[in-house]
Amino acid sequence: MAPKYAPSLRSRLAPLLLCLQTGFILLAAFYFEIKETVDRDAFINLYSEYQNVNVMIILGFGFLSTFLVRYGFSGSGFSLLVAIISTQWAIILNGIEFWYYRGKIQVDLKSVLVAELYAASALISIGAVLGKTNPVHLTLIALLEVSGFALNEWLLRTLLNVRPLNGIMLLHVFGALFGLMLTAILNRANSKQGFEKEKFDRKSGLFSMLGTLFLWMFWPSFNAVLVDDRTPWRKLEAEGSTYLALAVSAVTAAAVSVLCNPKGKLNLVQLQSCILAGGVAVGVSISAIHQPWEAMTIGFTAAIISTIGFKYLKTHMLLAFDCHDTCAILSTHGLPGLLGWLAQLVLQIKDCDDHTVAIRFAVFHISALLITVTISLIMGILTGFLLKWNFWRPPQNKKCFDDQAFWEFPHLAERK
Amino acid sequence: MAPKYAPSLRSRLAPLLLCLQTGFILLAAFYFEIKETVDRDAFINLYSEYQNVNVMIILGFGFLSTFLVRYGFSGSGFSLLVAIISTQWAIILNGIEFWYYRGKIQVDLKSVLVAELYAASALISIGAVLGKTNPVHLTLIALLEVSGFALNEWLLRTLLNVRPLNGIMLLHVFGALFGLMLTAILNRANSKQGFEKEKFDRKSGLFSMLGTLFLWMFWPSFNAVLVDDRTPWRKLEAEGSTYLALAVSAVTAAAVSVLCNPKGKLNLVQLQSCILAGGVAVGVSISAIHQPWEAMTIGFTAAIISTIGFKYLKTHMLLAFDCHDTCAILSTHGLPGLLGWLAQLVLQIKDCDDHTVAIRFAVFHISALLITVTISLIMGILTGFLLKWNFWRPPQNKKCFDDQAFWEFPHLAERK
Amino acid sequence: MAPKYAPSLRSRLAPLLLCLQTGFILLAAFYFEIKETVDRDAFINLYSEYQNVNVMIILGFGFLSTFLVRYGFSGSGFSLLVAIISTQWAIILNGIEFWYYRGKIQVDLKSVLVAELYAASALISIGAVLGKTNPVHLTLIALLEVSGFALNEWLLRTLLNVRPLNGIMLLHVFGALFGLMLTAILNRANSKQGFEKEKFDRKSGLFSMLGTLFLWMFWPSFNAVLVDDRTPWRKLEAEGSTYLALAVSAVTAAAVSVLCNPKGKLNLVQLQSCILAGGVAVGVSISAIHQPWEAMTIGFTAAIISTIGFKYLKTHMLLAFDCHDTCAILSTHGLPGLLGWLAQLVLQIKDCDDHTVAIRFAVFHISALLITVTISLIMGILTGFLLKWNFWRPPQNKKCFDDQAFWEFPHLAERK
Repeated sequence: MAPKYAPSLRSRLAPLLLCLQTGFILLAAFYFEIKETVDRDAFINLYSEYQNVNVMIILGFGFLSTFLVRYGFSGSGFSLLVAIISTQWAIILNGIEFWYYRGKIQVDLKSVLVAELYAASALISIGAVLGKTNPVHLTLIALLEVSGFALNEWLLRTLLNVRPLNGIMLLHVFGALFGLMLTAILNRANSKQGFEKEKFDRKSGLFSMLGTLFLWMFWPSFNAVLVDDRTPWRKLEAEGSTYLALAVSAVTAAAVSVLCNPKGKLNLVQLQSCILAGGVAVGVSISAIHQPWEAMTIGFTAAIISTIGFKYLKTHMLLAFDCHDTCAILSTHGLPGLLGWLAQLVLQIKDCDDHTVAIRFAVFHISALLITVTISLIMGILTGFLLKWNFWRPPQNKKCFDDQAFWEFPHLAERK
Repeated sequence: MAPKYAPSLRSRLAPLLLCLQTGFILLAAFYFEIKETVDRDAFINLYSEYQNVNVMIILGFGFLSTFLVRYGFSGSGFSLLVAIISTQWAIILNGIEFWYYRGKIQVDLKSVLVAELYAASALISIGAVLGKTNPVHLTLIALLEVSGFALNEWLLRTLLNVRPLNGIMLLHVFGALFGLMLTAILNRANSKQGFEKEKFDRKSGLFSMLGTLFLWMFWPSFNAVLVDDRTPWRKLEAEGSTYLALAVSAVTAAAVSVLCNPKGKLNLVQLQSCILAGGVAVGVSISAIHQPWEAMTIGFTAAIISTIGFKYLKTHMLLAFDCHDTCAILSTHGLPGLLGWLAQLVLQIKDCDDHTVAIRFAVFHISALLITVTISLIMGILTGFLLKWNFWRPPQNKKCFDDQAFWEFPHLAERK
Repeated sequence: MAPKYAPSLRSRLAPLLLCLQTGFILLAAFYFEIKETVDRDAFINLYSEYQNVNVMIILGFGFLSTFLVRYGFSGSGFSLLVAIISTQWAIILNGIEFWYYRGKIQVDLKSVLVAELYAASALISIGAVLGKTNPVHLTLIALLEVSGFALNEWLLRTLLNVRPLNGIMLLHVFGALFGLMLTAILNRANSKQGFEKEKFDRKSGLFSMLGTLFLWMFWPSFNAVLVDDRTPWRKLEAEGSTYLALAVSAVTAAAVSVLCNPKGKLNLVQLQSCILAGGVAVGVSISAIHQPWEAMTIGFTAAIISTIGFKYLKTHMLLAFDCHDTCAILSTHGLPGLLGWLAQLVLQIKDCDDHTVAIRFAVFHISALLITVTISLIMGILTGFLLKWNFWRPPQNKKCFDDQAFWEFPHLAERK
C-alpha cells in the first residue's frame, strides 16, 4: 500500500537550498564587483525597465500558475523560488566570460535584468511539469535549464555572431522544447487518465487571469529591454509593435476559441495562454519589425496557431507522445516562438536587396534555430533522466496537483 | 418554454471579431505610418505614462468588474475585449483628420495612450449594462461609444476651440450618460425584482477591491497625461492634486457611508465606487486647479455626492426610470464628472479679473457641456435601439450575471 | 448576555473622520503652498519613485493583511484608511518646522512620498492589533503613531544630527515596538486560547501572497527613495543591494522553514513574512552597504532570524507576555530592523581607519537606537491606554477577526 502522506522534503530541500545560497554568497564575496556607470538618463531608464521585467517574472509568471484549484500556493511560491534561484545563477554564468579575462564578475542592475530573461526561460520550462514535481526537482530544473540556455547563448554568440537581442529572445523556443522533453521523460503511468485535481474554479481562474494580465500589460517592456539604449526610438517602436500584436492576438484568440467550440463558448485557461501568443512571436522577431501592420499580422497568425494548438495539439501530444503539458507551453511559447523565428527570416529577406546577403542570413538564421533546438532537447533529456532518480522523492500520483504535499494547512481540520 | 442553454454566439461573435480585426490590420497596412520623435526625455516619460494608463484600463477596469460572484470571468475578460477593440478603433478615428490632409494616419505610443482614454469612456458605459449583455453587444457598444466620443471631441475642438485636456476629460460625463441611456432602453421586464445572481461574496469583493486600488493608485497619472509635456511642473501639480483629492474622498466616503447606514456599517461595493469620485471630479477640472485645498475640497464634495447618490439615487433610477445601473456609473462617474465641470467653471471665473472674459468663458463652458450631453444621449439611444434587435442573441433573464452562458466549466460536473 | 450584534460605529467613526478631514482641508487652505521645482529630470524620477512607494503602501500592505479568511474586507479597507490618514497627517507634521520659520507648509509630491514612509510605520504597527480593533481605534493609532515617529525623527535629527536616510529607515523598529506595546496593553482575556476565526484558507492565502509579492518587488524603490538624488549611482546600488538581499532571504526562508517543520512542510503565512526580512534589514543599513556580498549576507541572516522568530518567538510572546501579534510584526520588522541597525554599526566601524571616529559613530548610533526604542515604547503604552477606553466601542471577542462587525453583506441571507 502506498504511504498516506507525501514524502518529507526536509532532508532534501533544506540542505540543497542552503548549500546553493551559501555558495552564491561566497562567490559574490570573492568574485563580484560593482560596475560603475555614469550616464544619468541611463539610471532612470534602467530602473524602470528592470522593474517592469521584474513584475512579469515574479508576479506575472507566479500568478499565471495559480489556475490549478488545489495548487495555488505551490504555483505562486515555487515560481518565486525558481525565479530567484535562476536569476542568481544566471548572473554568475553570464559573468564567467568577464571573470575569465579580468578575474571578477561585474554586477549592476543591468546584469540582474538580463539574468531575469534567463529566469523567464526556466519558468516557461517548469510550466510543463508543474503539479507533478516537488520543489527539489524545480530547483534542479532551474539550475540546469539556465546552464543550458547560457551555453546556447554563448554558442550562438561566438559561433554565429548572433546579437543578444536575437539570441536571448529564442528563450521561448528553448524553454518550451526543454520543458516538453522533460515532461515526456518524467511521464507518469496514469497521466493519460488525467489527474483528479488538475482543474480550475471560478476564483483560481481569476487569480491566473491576474497573472496573465500582468504579463500582457508589461510584455512591451520585455520585448524592448534588449534593444540598444542608444536608439530610444527603436525601443519605443518595439513597445508599440508589441502592444499592437498583443491587442490583435487577444481579439483573434477570442474569435478562434469561440469558433472551435461546438457550443460557441470560451475557455478561460485556453484564452489566457493564447492572448499572450502575439507577444511571444513579436518578441522573437522584434529586430526585423518596422511597420505596425507587420506586428499586427504576426499577432493575428500567432493567436490562430496558438488557439488551434491548445485545442487539438495538447491532447494529441499526450496520447501520441506521453507528453503531459500542464500549462500548454508548446502552444503558448513553442509554436508562437517558431512563428516569430520564421517571421524574422521572411522580413529580413524581404528587406534585402542583395541575394548573397539574403542567403547568408538565411543560413545563419537556420543554424541558430538548429543549435537552439538541439541543445534544448539534449539538456531536457539529460535533466529528465537526472530527475527520474527516486532519491529526489517525487510526489505520489495521488498527491499531484495538491498543495497539501508541501504546505501546512493548520486550520483545515477545524474548518472542515 | 425557454431553452435551457444560453444561445450560442459562435455564428455571431467569431465573424464579427475576425472581420473587425482583419479590417484593422488592412487599414494599418495601407494607412498607418510611424511618427518619428527625437527628444530622448520624451521617450522615457512617454513609456511610463503609457504604462500607468494601460494598467488602469486593462487591470483596473478589468478587475473592478469582477465583484459579481458568478460573473468574474466575463467581467475581466469582456472588459479586456472592449478595451482593446475601442483602443484600436480610437487610434483610427483620431487619425482620420490627419489622413484627410496627408493621406496617412500617424501612429506612435502617444496615439495608443490617447486612444486608451477613449477606451476608458467605453469601459464606463459598459458598466451600466454589465451582466445583462453578451460580448457581441459589448463589441458594438465599444465601436459606437468611441465613435460618438470622437465626434464629440471633434465638435468641441472645432466649434468651441476646447483644448483636448478639457474636452477628453469630459469622458466621465459622456460615458456615464451614454451608458444610462443604453440601459434604460435595454431594460428587462424583471429588472425591478432584481436579478438572482447579482451579488458579491467575500472573495469576489476582494478581486474588485484589487481593481479599485489599481485605479486609485494610478489615477494621478491618468489626470496628468494630457497636461502639456513642456510644463512638467504642471504635470506634477496635477498628480499631487489628484492624490490629495483621492485621499480626501476615500476618508469622506467611508465617513458618509457609515453615517447613511442605520447599523453604522460599511458597504464594500459602495465604498469602492465612492473612493474614486475625487479622482473623477479633479480630472474634469484639472486645468483650473492650482491650490491643494481646491483639490481637497472638490474631493470632499465629490465623495459626499457620490456616496449619497449610490445610496438613494441608484434605487430611484431603477424604480422611476427603469434604469438598472450594474456598476452605479451615475454616482461614480456621472455626478462627480458634473461636479468637476462646475468646479472648473467656478474656479476659472474666480481667477478672472475681467467680466467680459469671465462671461465669455462661462458661455463656452456651458455650451461644451450641452454638446457633450446631447451627443451622449443621442448616441446612447441609437445604440440602445440597435442592440434591442434579437439578431444579437441576448442572454435570457435567467442567464444574466452568469458566466456559464459564455464560458466552459469543464470540471464543474466532477466537482459538484 | 453579550449583545448579538457588534456595537454600531455610526456615532464614533463618522464624526471622527469628518472632523479630521475637514480639519486637514482647512489647514491646507490656510497654510499649504506648492513648492516650485525646476529640474526636469527630477520630475520624471520623482513621479516614478512616488508611484512605486505608493503601490507598496496602498496595495502591498493592503493585501498583505487579507490573509485572514473572514477579515479580508477589513484588512484591505482599513489599511487604506490608515494609510491615507497617516499620510495626510505626516505631511502636516513634517511641514511644522518650515511653517514655524516661514508661516507656510511647503507641499509637493516629494512631501507626499516622505509622508508615505511615515504611513508605512503606522501600517506596521496596526499589523499587531489587526482583527482585534475597530476602525476608530485604527484611526487613533494612525494619528498617534505618526506623531510619535515624527517626534522621534525630529529628536534624532536635531539632537544627534542623524540624516533622514538613517533616521526614517528606523521606521521598522519603531513601528514594531509601538505595535507590540499596543497589543500587550490591549490584551484580551481569551487571546491565549486563540481566536476561532483567526485562520487562512487557500484563496485568502493567495490574496496575501499578492500583497507580499508587491512589497517584495517594489522594496528596492522603498530603500532607495531617501538616497540623495544627486548621486543616482548610489540609488542604483541601493536598489541592486535590496534585490539581492530579498532574493537571498526568500531562498533562505524557504530552506529554514522546511528545516523547522517536523514534516518538512512550508507554512504560507510564515514564508510571506520571512521573505521580506532581507528588505527590512538592508533598508535600515542601506547607507553602509557597498558590496553585493554584504547585502546578501544581511539578507541571509535576516531570513534565519525572522523564520526562527516566527516559529518560536510568536507563541512565546503570547504565553509569556500576553502579547498577541496578528501579523508577526516582531519577526517581520522588529528583529530584521535591529539586525540592520547592528549591521550598519559593524560595517561603518569596519570602514573607519580612525579609532576616535569609530567610537564616536558607535556612541551616536547606539543613542539613536535608544531614543527610538524609548519613544516607541512610551508612545505605544500611551496609545494603548487611550484605546482601552470603552468609549471607542471595541468589538466583542466573538466578533474579532470578523468582517460582519463592520461590513454589510446584503445577499448573505439569500446565499446561505
